Formats: sequence, C-alpha cells, structure tokens
Amino acid sequence: MNYRFSKSLDGFSSSAVREILKLTQGKSIISFAGGLPAEEFFPIEAVGEAFQRVIQQGKGALQYGLTEGYKPLRESLCRRMANKNMHVTPDEMLLTTGSQQVIDLLTRVYIDEGDVILVERPTYLAALQVFQAKGAKIYSVDSDNDGMIMEDLAAKIAKYNPKLVYVIPTFSNPAGRVWSLERRKGLLEICKKAEVLILEDDPYGEIQFDGNASYPTVFSLAGKAEGSNVLYTSTFSKTVAPAFRTGWVIGDSDVIRQMARFKQSADLHSSSIDQQTLYHLLEHFDLDAHIALIREHYEERMKLMVGLLEGLKWPGLKWEQPKGGMFIWVELPENIRAEDLMKQAVQEGVAFVPGSTFFAENPQYNTMRLNYTHTDRENTVLGMQKLAKAMEVYLQNA
Amino acid sequence: MNYRFSKSLDGFSSSAVREILKLTQGKSIISFAGGLPAEEFFPIEAVGEAFQRVIQQGKGALQYGLTEGYKPLRESLCRRMANKNMHVTPDEMLLTTGSQQVIDLLTRVYIDEGDVILVERPTYLAALQVFQAKGAKIYSVDSDNDGMIMEDLAAKIAKYNPKLVYVIPTFSNPAGRVWSLERRKGLLEICKKAEVLILEDDPYGEIQFDGNASYPTVFSLAGKAEGSNVLYTSTFSKTVAPAFRTGWVIGDSDVIRQMARFKQSADLHSSSIDQQTLYHLLEHFDLDAHIALIREHYEERMKLMVGLLEGLKWPGLKWEQPKGGMFIWVELPENIRAEDLMKQAVQEGVAFVPGSTFFAENPQYNTMRLNYTHTDRENTVLGMQKLAKAMEVYLQNA
Repeated sequence: MNYRFSKSLDGFSSSAVREILKLTQGKSIISFAGGLPAEEFFPIEAVGEAFQRVIQQGKGALQYGLTEGYKPLRESLCRRMANKNMHVTPDEMLLTTGSQQVIDLLTRVYIDEGDVILVERPTYLAALQVFQAKGAKIYSVDSDNDGMIMEDLAAKIAKYNPKLVYVIPTFSNPAGRVWSLERRKGLLEICKKAEVLILEDDPYGEIQFDGNASYPTVFSLAGKAEGSNVLYTSTFSKTVAPAFRTGWVIGDSDVIRQMARFKQSADLHSSSIDQQTLYHLLEHFDLDAHIALIREHYEERMKLMVGLLEGLKWPGLKWEQPKGGMFIWVELPENIRAEDLMKQAVQEGVAFVPGSTFFAENPQYNTMRLNYTHTDRENTVLGMQKLAKAMEVYLQNA
Repeated sequence: MNYRFSKSLDGFSSSAVREILKLTQGKSIISFAGGLPAEEFFPIEAVGEAFQRVIQQGKGALQYGLTEGYKPLRESLCRRMANKNMHVTPDEMLLTTGSQQVIDLLTRVYIDEGDVILVERPTYLAALQVFQAKGAKIYSVDSDNDGMIMEDLAAKIAKYNPKLVYVIPTFSNPAGRVWSLERRKGLLEICKKAEVLILEDDPYGEIQFDGNASYPTVFSLAGKAEGSNVLYTSTFSKTVAPAFRTGWVIGDSDVIRQMARFKQSADLHSSSIDQQTLYHLLEHFDLDAHIALIREHYEERMKLMVGLLEGLKWPGLKWEQPKGGMFIWVELPENIRAEDLMKQAVQEGVAFVPGSTFFAENPQYNTMRLNYTHTDRENTVLGMQKLAKAMEVYLQNA
C-alpha cells in the first residue's frame, strides 16, 4: 500500500523534546527537559474524594456531555476568573483537552494557509508546530525581558497584516519572562487598532513567587469578552495535575461558538468525568492553599538551580532569575551549540531542551531551557554536576 | 473587532442534531434522536472501583502520559482485538478522545482540499462534517441492505480516484445495516487494488443481537496491520460509557505514527486518568458479561419499537429490523418531508433525526432515524403515540 498522506505533513517539524525522549529511552536520565510539574505535590487524596462525589451523582454522570463542557465547572471557573478581574459568562468559555487544544482549535477556525501570525522570540514550540501544520507564516517580534518590543510589533503589524498575535505574557515558556504592565497595555492597544486577535496563553500565571506582585492579564485589561480582540486560555495541568487534560478558553461568545463547532467535529467533547471531578475538587478542596504550597516548593527549587548555575562559572553564561513559572532560560557562550552539548549531556545522564527549537525564525543556537519544577534537590545537584561534566567534555572536543 | 475567521468555516454545516436540541430546550421531550446508550446499565460501581485502583497506583498516575495512550490499556485492547481476529501490537494502536477524534486525525494526516472520499448512502453525519470542513469532495456509493454495491464502488473509484472510503459495515449509523461477507471481501479487494485507504468505523459491533452470527471486520479480512489499506476504529462509549471519551484506532504503524504526531499538537494526549480507569476496569470487571446484558436489553427495546412501528399502519412505511446497534432507519411515504414532520413532532413532545442530514449528496427527504436504546418501555410507547399524533396533524395540514 502506497500511502498518500496530506501535504500538511510537510510543514510538520518533529518535536525536539520527543527526539530527546528517544535518546533517553532505557537510560537513567535526570531530566531538566520536560515541562512537568512535581508529582510529589499532586493532591491525589482530594482527587480520589472528588471522584467519589462524581460517582455518588449517579449513572447520569457517565452519559455524553456538552461540547462546551460541564456547565457547573464553567460556572465555577467563571468565579475564579472574576477574582482575577476577568468577567465572563459560561457562554464565553469552552472547556478543552488541555490548553494545547485551544491553540489548535483557534488555528482551525481563524487561520488559513498563508495567514501571518506574530509570536514572541523565543516562544512555545508546540504552538509553532500547530501554526506550521496549518501553513501559516510565522514571524517573531523582537522581545526583551519586559515582553515584545512595541516598535517592532507595530512595524511588523504594518508590514505583514497578521491575523493573530500569540503571547505568554506571564512566566513565559521558554524564557520565564513577565511582561511589564506598559507592554501589556501597548500590545492590547496596537492590536485593537489594527483589529488583530491576541491569544493570551497563561498556563503558568498561578505559579508566582512574589505574592505581592500583580501581573494583570491582557484579557483583564481589555475589559469585557464581548467584541474583545483577546482570547485567554489556561489549564489545570500545572495547578492540579496534567492527567486530567482539562483547559479552558474565554473570549467573545461568537469566537467561542465557532471553536465549539470545530471541537464537536474534532472529538464531540473532552472527558466529562474529569471535568466533573475537577468541579467537585474546586468545591471541596482549597486549591489556592494548594497553589501557595507548590509556589513555595517551586521557588525553592528555582533558587537551588540558580545557585548551581552561578557556581558553574562558564564564561559568557547569562540568565534571568524567574519570577514564577517552571523554566530558566540560559544563554551559553556564543560559540556553543546547545544541540551538540545536549548529545554529550545525554551521555552523562542529564537532559535539557536546546533553545533553538523555540524560535520561529533565526534560531539562537547558544541557548537552552532548564526546568526546575520536576526534579528534587538531590537530583538537581547531581544533574547540574553532570551538565558541568558534559560541558567540560564538549569544550575538550570542540 | 471585525473577526476574520478561516474559510474552513464556510464548508461547515451545522449539526442537525444540535439544531434539534435547540428546539427541545426547556421542553419535556421524549427523544429518539440522539445516539445515546441507556444510562441505567452503566457499570458505575465497577467504574468507581477501577478509579480507586488508579488512585492506589500513587501520584505518578496524575502526571503527563504518552500521546499514543496508556500502554497497559493498549496491550489489553490488543488482546481484545486478537479475540476478534485482529492481530496488532501496541505500536499499531493509538488511543483517542472517542472514535470521533480518529475520523478527525485521519482526515488531517491524509486528506487535502479537493481530495475525494467515498461514503455509504446514508452515512454518519459527523464524519461528513469533518470531511467537509477539510474541503474534501464527498461522493456516496449506492448501497442496499448488504452494504455498498460493488459495481458502483468500482465505477466511482475508477471515475474519482478517491483517497479514502469511509464505512460502518456492522450495524451502521444511521441505517442499522450489516454488510454481507461477500461485500466486505469485495470492498477490501477493490480498494487494495486501487490503493485506496479504508476507514472501518465500528462503534456498534459489540451490540449484536444474534449471538451465533459472525460478522468479521474488514480489518480482520485484510490479515495484518503492516502495509494494510484498512484502519479500524472503535470506542468504549457504547459498551462502557461515553463520558470517558476513549476510543482507539489500529492500523499500519506508519499511519498510526503520523496520526500520533498530529494528536500531539492537537491536545498532547487524551485523559490518562480515564485510560487508566478503563485499564483496571478491563482487568477486574467482566466486560463481556456486561455487553451480553446490554445486548439483551437493547434487543428488547428494538423489538418493542419495531412492534409499535408495525402498529402505525402509515401507507408506504418501510424499515428493516436491525440485527444490532442502536438505530432503526425508517422510510416514510414519498410525499412526506421528515424535516417538516420533525417540527410537528417536537410540538407533540417527541424528537427524531430527519434522515436527509445523513446523505453526502441527493438527500432522501422522506427518511428518519429512530434510536431505541436510550428510552425505556413506557416512554417508547408514549413517544410513538406522540409521533403518530404528529403525523396525523402533519397530514391534515399538508
């Protein structure tokens, strides 16, 4: 059989993380590569109790549900969103299979082949893959530690007439950045004027180390959902657990409705057992106290890794201490190719993601992303020693 | 904000079932419309126990999983498939968010705009929606109670050079048909020769009323997965419960791998909590005994509805008694438009799906689909009375 695959496979780059996992198969590897939360803090007992409550609801709990998602969970999430100054109704929300599906659904309803999408530099690689598979033209906007540079954003909007700007303004993946309030407002204003849609991806916003700092979402700055040019998405993957695969998107009800139509034909609806479990969890478990707990542990792990990075004393090494989220973005000396260092690192028993994979264009090859949330103290120390060893061997062979 | 949606929205017809649900909102309606299993038989206690076993596995159960799906469940399903003479390895299987996602993923990796897909006449409407949204050209092959008519299939393959043939050979939706063995073999042979891929959709195969009958799947007739031109998909939605949203597809490992790549960017993976729960359910619960139970009840309900149809005495009424599955396909007198009858039926408090929605082309307006699995005896009797009343009023007004 000669399979005649779609041409959309051509635009489809293989995931670097996936290739790395192949390299690590069967080996004992300390991984700073994935974006995994720490398993030891998963609230498994509360999850078990919440599921029991679902079962107690009776057999109807196992029937088909709405494409839009379990309504009590949407109502509950509306209340949580309101606490963050995002005011929406359940009709302005769609529950999805993780926030990854939001990126995919929006691309399906909004992007045609050849349409332009602007992204940060660097940005989330699995968003790039979705955009590429649809045949979009992706340009990156020059960015610094405060977010996209407004002059470059305005220039690229004028030049390319993009349909969409994709951003992770709070504790970005991979750079761990927080956009300044000024840049958030600037993004909103410039895009509103040019009628460009913004997808604000916020999986990490709750993992904030400075309890006093306030980082208002772009969606909240826009005011209301109706007619808004901002769609906001988040997920339970980092705050409760990834296995539920439950995310949500809020925005104008017309856009939400179009996404729901595509979702209906994509999978009818996401697991309503999981949605019901999360509803009961929100009702009976102090999720905010739980988030405070993981913030504390993640900050401790971040500080440990930062300290170990400081100890490395590689000339030309640069990074910013993250204010939240799950990643440290590291710039290596200019002559180092992180992809090559990676191969040596895997030999030594440690993994990370080479930064080049996070660029829409002109990759910076001397960068890498380190995850600090998944690995405990002992293994973080050990892993960083292995990384130092890998660099030593790499430099000897260079 | 002037939203600039993708042109793929143009090809997107609204779901008739969805429109019907709108008509019925807030009303007490007896529905023969949906494809819903009967809630009263959901094995909720076994599900609760299976979930407890997942929780007992420890916190790792809540971490990210593989895109391909929870491996022990794939292994377990391989054993179930082998019992039906379908021999595959876990690498030749992908777990999905219901079998609906299989249709979507295959369309994404295999179909380009303008490609031709052949379908049965009539066929599953949500498959038609997926194909239409991708911009495929869909032609229906003349079909009778034994399946597609081979001469027409061969002629249309020669004429249109299709990439894909989509079929539901066992207890089809909506027609409730079972393909003869001869036609199954014919389909396989003709498509193999012309290098046309077959998607065999089998959500209802387990709901078989005659325990002695044997309906080998087209996939099993093809022999092995490697290099095969048959992909086979099924789901737990009709045998355990829909809320899990867990389906699977088996086929050549290269095709499966491409579908997994698209799935990764579509939603990373489906709920692994649900997949783990189903694994423990298969290990500790007699699913086959459960299926025997629901077969018995569904057959009883089918016979009740067939008896009530016989009592209607509408001139020109035609149907075939189903050998399994969830639907009776009814041909009304030629001058009746089921869509108009439907509006009257909703007034009377009963719903069905007008058959015209299940045709890729040249719809037969005098047809309707009745579901017999979801409604109990009392309401089935009452609903059929309401349907008779609706017809009476309809004929008076005609």
